[in-house]
Amino acid sequence: MQRIEPLRPKEIRSLIRKGKWGKPTAGVALGYAQANLVVLPQKYAFDFLLFCQRNPKPCPLLEVLEPGRYRTKYLSSYADIRTDIPRYHIYQNGRLERTVKRITDLWRKDFVTFLLGCSFSFEEALLRVKITIRHIEENKNVPMFITNIPCKPAGVFHGPMVVSMRPIPLDQVARAVQITSRYASVHGAPVHIGDPLAIGIKDLRKPDFGDSVTIHKGEAPVFWACGVTPQAVVMKAKPDLCITHAPGHMFVTDLLNEELA
Amino acid sequence: MQRIEPLRPKEIRSLIRKGKWGKPTAGVALGYAQANLVVLPQKYAFDFLLFCQRNPKPCPLLEVLEPGRYRTKYLSSYADIRTDIPRYHIYQNGRLERTVKRITDLWRKDFVTFLLGCSFSFEEALLRVKITIRHIEENKNVPMFITNIPCKPAGVFHGPMVVSMRPIPLDQVARAVQITSRYASVHGAPVHIGDPLAIGIKDLRKPDFGDSVTIHKGEAPVFWACGVTPQAVVMKAKPDLCITHAPGHMFVTDLLNEELA
Repeated sequence: MQRIEPLRPKEIRSLIRKGKWGKPTAGVALGYAQANLVVLPQKYAFDFLLFCQRNPKPCPLLEVLEPGRYRTKYLSSYADIRTDIPRYHIYQNGRLERTVKRITDLWRKDFVTFLLGCSFSFEEALLRVKITIRHIEENKNVPMFITNIPCKPAGVFHGPMVVSMRPIPLDQVARAVQITSRYASVHGAPVHIGDPLAIGIKDLRKPDFGDSVTIHKGEAPVFWACGVTPQAVVMKAKPDLCITHAPGHMFVTDLLNEELA
Repeated sequence: MQRIEPLRPKEIRSLIRKGKWGKPTAGVALGYAQANLVVLPQKYAFDFLLFCQRNPKPCPLLEVLEPGRYRTKYLSSYADIRTDIPRYHIYQNGRLERTVKRITDLWRKDFVTFLLGCSFSFEEALLRVKITIRHIEENKNVPMFITNIPCKPAGVFHGPMVVSMRPIPLDQVARAVQITSRYASVHGAPVHIGDPLAIGIKDLRKPDFGDSVTIHKGEAPVFWACGVTPQAVVMKAKPDLCITHAPGHMFVTDLLNEELA
């Protein structure tokens, strides 16, 4: 989110498709929503779709494709899921086996694609009302924590909710809740405000993923459901195969963040 | 909604289960959400879940059960889907074959249960802010119309959106939008306000389902996505078997309408 990137989503996806863009997508095509990717064989698809339906805060579905389909219909009419993401992670039996730049050769007719909302969208909305995002300010990755809040299980999928934390000045906390409440399809309102222990987080300086950020006096830690949750839950279920985006290397959609509000 | 019914959801479900309640459920357990029922064999379940995900306004999912399960977990911890609805419709190949009072003997391990939000919830919210509901006032069924708005298809399921219409005084239209926007899981904000022709409705006096109601001078017809949509779409796909509630004979949940806001 740090700098203005003049390219439009279609142009960025075209560069990615041609192998000319290997970087993370944070800060590109500002104003447009980016999405997390999860591809699963069809035998897991109903359970995972049900898991997302039951847990919309950590798993906000933006689009799900029918088995075998690799072209999005609603997030973009131009995209190819097999080539338009800068880096893919291939997991076998819950273990990361390799990172690749396209999955065209791996594609199967029973693959079901899930695209989930990403916090970039609501961070942009917060910035627009002059609420500072500490990890952007400190040029770090957002701190993420495994909580003691159980997700609602569905079929083979279950596990705790992972949250991201942003320190917010006390006089802006209510405003931050209002703003992010408008974006239900990108994690929505916070799941917790204040005391980290209440949701099982023992030390805010030691995130389970991402980086530790400064919390100033007069700020509350505010916790939002995080898109790492579905990935953690999928890995725990150890499907024989699962493909995701590599962290930070997202699918850039043609949907304006404002269209999600 | 016309009269106060002192019984609580659990008591009503118990009467229904014992065969002592064959009536519609409109107006009972005021304050508690009621749900539409769709039961489908597992082979149709992913497509239908995807259809609901893509069309949340006509198909607002309140709970979906894993294959074979007949006890709800989130809408109530006491209920049995096979016995706790006053009347069921059994459809074979898209045709209504019979109406029964319980489906215990028909139950199969591959049945997937979908419970969808119902407009009773948002009507109660409108009444609470003194917005009159004409069909309740006239003691009729809400008028429903097949529109030219296509639902987003999913797998074998596709078809036009069905809407319900409520005449609202012009100076209360914005308020009605605000109030119902809060209830996204029970159809949410209107899909259309005003000119019926714009969504393919030729004559407001001739609803496709339900009854015609009076529209006074100074009132706009306001159209909400209707729970008849998923039923119409399922019937069109002609699954070999489908079980629904009989119109007006809903599943009474333990969830307060306010919990849906």
